[in-house]
Amino acid sequence: MLTGVQVLLLGGDARQLEVIRRLTELDAVVTISGFDGLHSPLDGAVQADFEEQLFDGVDALLLPAVGTDEHGYVHAVFSNRKMQLTDSHLARLPKHCKVFTGMAKPYLHQLCKQNGLDLIELFERDDVAIYNSIPTAEGALMMAIQNTDITIHGSDSMVLGFGRTGFTMARSLHGLGSKVKVGVRRSEHFARAAEMGFEPFYISSLQQNVSNIDLLFNTIPTMIVTAQIIANLPSRAVIIDLASKPGGTDFRFAEKRGVKALLAPGLPGIVAPKTAGRIMADCLSQLILEETIKRGNGI
Amino acid sequence: MLTGVQVLLLGGDARQLEVIRRLTELDAVVTISGFDGLHSPLDGAVQADFEEQLFDGVDALLLPAVGTDEHGYVHAVFSNRKMQLTDSHLARLPKHCKVFTGMAKPYLHQLCKQNGLDLIELFERDDVAIYNSIPTAEGALMMAIQNTDITIHGSDSMVLGFGRTGFTMARSLHGLGSKVKVGVRRSEHFARAAEMGFEPFYISSLQQNVSNIDLLFNTIPTMIVTAQIIANLPSRAVIIDLASKPGGTDFRFAEKRGVKALLAPGLPGIVAPKTAGRIMADCLSQLILEETIKRGNGI
Repeated sequence: MLTGVQVLLLGGDARQLEVIRRLTELDAVVTISGFDGLHSPLDGAVQADFEEQLFDGVDALLLPAVGTDEHGYVHAVFSNRKMQLTDSHLARLPKHCKVFTGMAKPYLHQLCKQNGLDLIELFERDDVAIYNSIPTAEGALMMAIQNTDITIHGSDSMVLGFGRTGFTMARSLHGLGSKVKVGVRRSEHFARAAEMGFEPFYISSLQQNVSNIDLLFNTIPTMIVTAQIIANLPSRAVIIDLASKPGGTDFRFAEKRGVKALLAPGLPGIVAPKTAGRIMADCLSQLILEETIKRGNGI
Repeated sequence: MLTGVQVLLLGGDARQLEVIRRLTELDAVVTISGFDGLHSPLDGAVQADFEEQLFDGVDALLLPAVGTDEHGYVHAVFSNRKMQLTDSHLARLPKHCKVFTGMAKPYLHQLCKQNGLDLIELFERDDVAIYNSIPTAEGALMMAIQNTDITIHGSDSMVLGFGRTGFTMARSLHGLGSKVKVGVRRSEHFARAAEMGFEPFYISSLQQNVSNIDLLFNTIPTMIVTAQIIANLPSRAVIIDLASKPGGTDFRFAEKRGVKALLAPGLPGIVAPKTAGRIMADCLSQLILEETIKRGNGI
């Protein structure tokens, strides 16, 4: 339980509703700002206007998936009011307070650093990235079904990268009956992909492997699906790029060549906000609990 | 090869393009009507206006998935011209000519009967129904991903019926990590569903099994998802009815109760017209070939 733990949650989208629900269930004292446009009430949480005194005595500050923008503004889909996080806000937080977000921009990093506050980026964590890969893969499947005139079953698909997202993507395609090639760099990934019934190959020979591909899923966040690769794809191919913005595809060339290429970052919050919210809520509540125990024990 | 076999193909959608391609590849003499609005040329097929003399000497008459409507009109998405199939057309067909369609309405049944012509309904065939169940299941998954805020992975799903479509639907859900309950009537279906790792139950106890279901897929074409069943579903549940029109769901009650219920017949032609066309093309070419061999041998 989180009885007595003071949590301040600012802005966000439907995912935050799951977070709020979970934390209030665990008996934390949850103050929220940026939800004034929400019609249904949030039992147990206190709605407040965005003011400096909210930051006094807070044990955990929760920011949305993207933290703040480059100017400190906090995105809040359930409010039209602007919330700009500045140094004067963070200066009021106790030094033990942890700041949580999905992925932080330099502005937030800088702000936490100059106030001596720990910043925890959830999406950087392996466990969260693995759980989030599930809605990402399902969203990618949905896009593949929508954007082709063939079934995934029986298709020739390719996944570039066999990390947290690539692994799930390959398994999901395989589960629906696609023939899955997996592009890897490391020999242990090659071995695991082979063990799982995929057809692994080394990225260095990517160009020789794309000539018969219907669906290409990229998870590698560097320019990898180059003009040269796209020129070797059949024109029926569809590229779905799951790497963080700006992706790893030469979209300009794909358009020129008439190959459909889609950049799809942020799928969890779009296709499964409830599941994505639960993933954040599970992780956050666990981390805050651990932190509370540590503090209680004077560590 | 189908060298010399005279095929007349009337109307249809993108699926017919695959059929035309396959039959011309096999060297059949293919005459088509209802494609005057198509921009890309169809190599090897002869486009013709819809006239009675087209029916002379034809070995196989191919109609679209739904055959004709109740008044004999043939649906053609690539044409604005009306084509009404009447007795005077079919009377000109040789008696050995086979009439192929997906699923025929009484009008077409009657017309073929009074002219002594064999009518073959492809969608009634087990092989075609099994192949078509693949794009159906993928389309249903797409709808499930679009219409829920959770992932299929980890969801509690239910499939009613374990026939050609139910089997594929259950396997696809299982492949994405859903916990799948399967409602069956026959003990051999119960056994097979258990063997495959699903959770089977008898339809007679449907009401006791729905209280925790996120996704309900029905494949049984009789009223089975009744008001009583819907009243026992959680309000978050989404019903996707894959049975032929009018489905097996009390849609009026679902709407009243605020449970999302979607009727989704004809998914193959929508989500994967190319694959669906190949399925029809494979089956048609095989059947026409068998017919030709039989006739050649005087059987």
